[in-house]
Amino acid sequence: MVAIGHHQTLRQYSKAAVKDAHVDVQRKGRYTLALKKNRGEGDHRRVGCAQKFLHEIGLLPPFARGKGSKGGMDGVGESAVEKVGTPQDRLSAALAGDMAAVNRLIRERMASKHAPRIPEVTAHLVEAGGKRLRPLLTLAAARMLGYTGNDHVKLAATVEFIHTATLLHDDVVDESQRRRGRPTANLLWDNKSSVLVGDYLFARSFQLMVETGSLRVLDILADASATIAEGEVLQLTAAQDLRTDEAIYLQVIRGKTAALFAAATESGGVIAGAEEGEIKALRDYGDALGIAFQIVDDMLDYGGSDAAIGKNTGDDFRERKLTLPLIKAVAKASPEERAFWVRVIEKGDQNDGDLAHAMVVLQRHDAISACRQDALAWTGRAKSALNNLPVHPLRDTLSELAEYVVSRIS
Amino acid sequence: MVAIGHHQTLRQYSKAAVKDAHVDVQRKGRYTLALKKNRGEGDHRRVGCAQKFLHEIGLLPPFARGKGSKGGMDGVGESAVEKVGTPQDRLSAALAGDMAAVNRLIRERMASKHAPRIPEVTAHLVEAGGKRLRPLLTLAAARMLGYTGNDHVKLAATVEFIHTATLLHDDVVDESQRRRGRPTANLLWDNKSSVLVGDYLFARSFQLMVETGSLRVLDILADASATIAEGEVLQLTAAQDLRTDEAIYLQVIRGKTAALFAAATESGGVIAGAEEGEIKALRDYGDALGIAFQIVDDMLDYGGSDAAIGKNTGDDFRERKLTLPLIKAVAKASPEERAFWVRVIEKGDQNDGDLAHAMVVLQRHDAISACRQDALAWTGRAKSALNNLPVHPLRDTLSELAEYVVSRIS
Repeated sequence: MVAIGHHQTLRQYSKAAVKDAHVDVQRKGRYTLALKKNRGEGDHRRVGCAQKFLHEIGLLPPFARGKGSKGGMDGVGESAVEKVGTPQDRLSAALAGDMAAVNRLIRERMASKHAPRIPEVTAHLVEAGGKRLRPLLTLAAARMLGYTGNDHVKLAATVEFIHTATLLHDDVVDESQRRRGRPTANLLWDNKSSVLVGDYLFARSFQLMVETGSLRVLDILADASATIAEGEVLQLTAAQDLRTDEAIYLQVIRGKTAALFAAATESGGVIAGAEEGEIKALRDYGDALGIAFQIVDDMLDYGGSDAAIGKNTGDDFRERKLTLPLIKAVAKASPEERAFWVRVIEKGDQNDGDLAHAMVVLQRHDAISACRQDALAWTGRAKSALNNLPVHPLRDTLSELAEYVVSRIS
Repeated sequence: MVAIGHHQTLRQYSKAAVKDAHVDVQRKGRYTLALKKNRGEGDHRRVGCAQKFLHEIGLLPPFARGKGSKGGMDGVGESAVEKVGTPQDRLSAALAGDMAAVNRLIRERMASKHAPRIPEVTAHLVEAGGKRLRPLLTLAAARMLGYTGNDHVKLAATVEFIHTATLLHDDVVDESQRRRGRPTANLLWDNKSSVLVGDYLFARSFQLMVETGSLRVLDILADASATIAEGEVLQLTAAQDLRTDEAIYLQVIRGKTAALFAAATESGGVIAGAEEGEIKALRDYGDALGIAFQIVDDMLDYGGSDAAIGKNTGDDFRERKLTLPLIKAVAKASPEERAFWVRVIEKGDQNDGDLAHAMVVLQRHDAISACRQDALAWTGRAKSALNNLPVHPLRDTLSELAEYVVSRIS
């Protein structure tokens, strides 16, 4: 159990929490192994067991609202080495107690008295070591704004449930395209389970939200759910259509990524009773962070720089998915290049060497550099939004998180 | 436009409304034809057009709360011939104005500025002539309890959206079993669209609920959503498992059918500000009606009587789906019969003549008759629940509806 006093800095605290988190990871490893060996009804007992030994850390006392303090600046003079791990690692460490409660709630609510298939499928996903970035954003937003209640834990679990449900449904959407040649072994169960367990998680997230008793939070998450689904449907028709421009792309990635980021931070502020300006700032931060995050992801699919082909390069190209790098190149295409894009993307007639040629065309038009500028601009917007929030160690970490997102392509 | 005065009986009103409804059906036919010929972006204009010419009927004034009156008994002396159509037809006629508003709202909310694929898919489903039984239940519950506001229209549309989303996801669940030999042409679009547009409808229904501003309604519908999804997942594992007993079957059909029926009636009462006893009665009615409805449906799949094979007989058998008739027969099976059930249901090894043999075994154990007794008992419970509600013409129609459901197998 780590206690954080008023005189401790976030960094000092982080070191201790990370040490504890390490122990936690070892235990989690054992639990995951146990889960792999035993599926089905037994999960319930194991989940109970896991709850007991995974979450001895307990809840942290809330951060004091730091509007008047200098926040993380107390730590000036400490060496930079003390910033352990990535900004997200530091966020995890600073919110370890809250996250333990979120994980406990997730395990509790993904259980089903009547349908053991449900915890089988969800445990697989939830234990798969997702980064839990979205619930961390909710917790950080609420704590930063001085929230001292427990509803932020429900909200954070809600956000993770929505994310997990979306992943389950995405699996189905991808697997149904057998021509992509993806092995169906990616799914341990079947399409049916993925669709229906996804629906179950949506319903469970909905129940959790209602428990917060906040109609405004419900409104935010209902709108986010609609934007997510709308973005996913839009992507179906827009992805292979060369008329797709940057505005449509933005709409798609808002649905795919930014809507849930924005709802995560905004709802955290609402639950904390933040002022309207602060709520807007939180929303703007989440939106911009999510957009930067997705642009970077789409750039990395082309190696992240104009001339590099990494081992994961080209998935979007092979799946004929128009993302920002291609959209920028298509906008500047010569007639000959346009014919190339029509063949490989619209018609899906791809040969060996087409990806390499695509990379040459992207470089010719500085498409990746242009994407990098866009990502940096969104990072800038995310950081600016934070200026409208009170000074707080978590605010600094969120700012570093925005920088970290684009550092992957710098 | 039909006006209903205080001196008009429900039956007198019904005749006029049915006449108007006939005109409406003709117009709807034209609209559906137009939709079939033109898909895509044009739908928006067409939907707008349809709204204009489909819904000239306008809203009815609310029924006066009939606690003290004799309700439908005013009509004593009129011949039975005046009961036009089925009880559901009469419900539709009595609530025609409200339903017009529901249909208008459904069309409005299924539109999507960004993703034209959405109205394409939903229009196909919504125009396909579903019976709209669930929204009618919500409207009837609210009106019966004297509701005079407009939120019941939102609730009814919510319930229909949830139902439609479930249908879309069921399509995917069924289509993924290609061994069932179903033509994939059943789906005009693809799995991806069905999954994602279903998600969109869930999200839209969620937005509509939030607009009612009633946390209790949200609670009811969140719980119903979880029960629906849980029941569907349970069915995946239970359907081909001979250990599935009547208790599990009940859980499955509560999820599949009764949960939404019960939520439809209960939420209608809540929005009307009904007393707790009335709300419970509405919930019990919806639950029992839904269970009776599904048992009858499952009986009809075996012809509805012990010796009849109709042209739609045997779908569940071929899909190896354990429903109540089989569960009753399995419980009484001789060792030889048990081996038969293991082969055809658990192993799915079916030959010509197996369905006919199954029918003989069902008849041997009076399985269909036993199901009929169960269905009648649930109808009885539905009708009893209505006794705790105020006297009202709609109450009589709901009672007749419960009888009508089982009349299909009597």
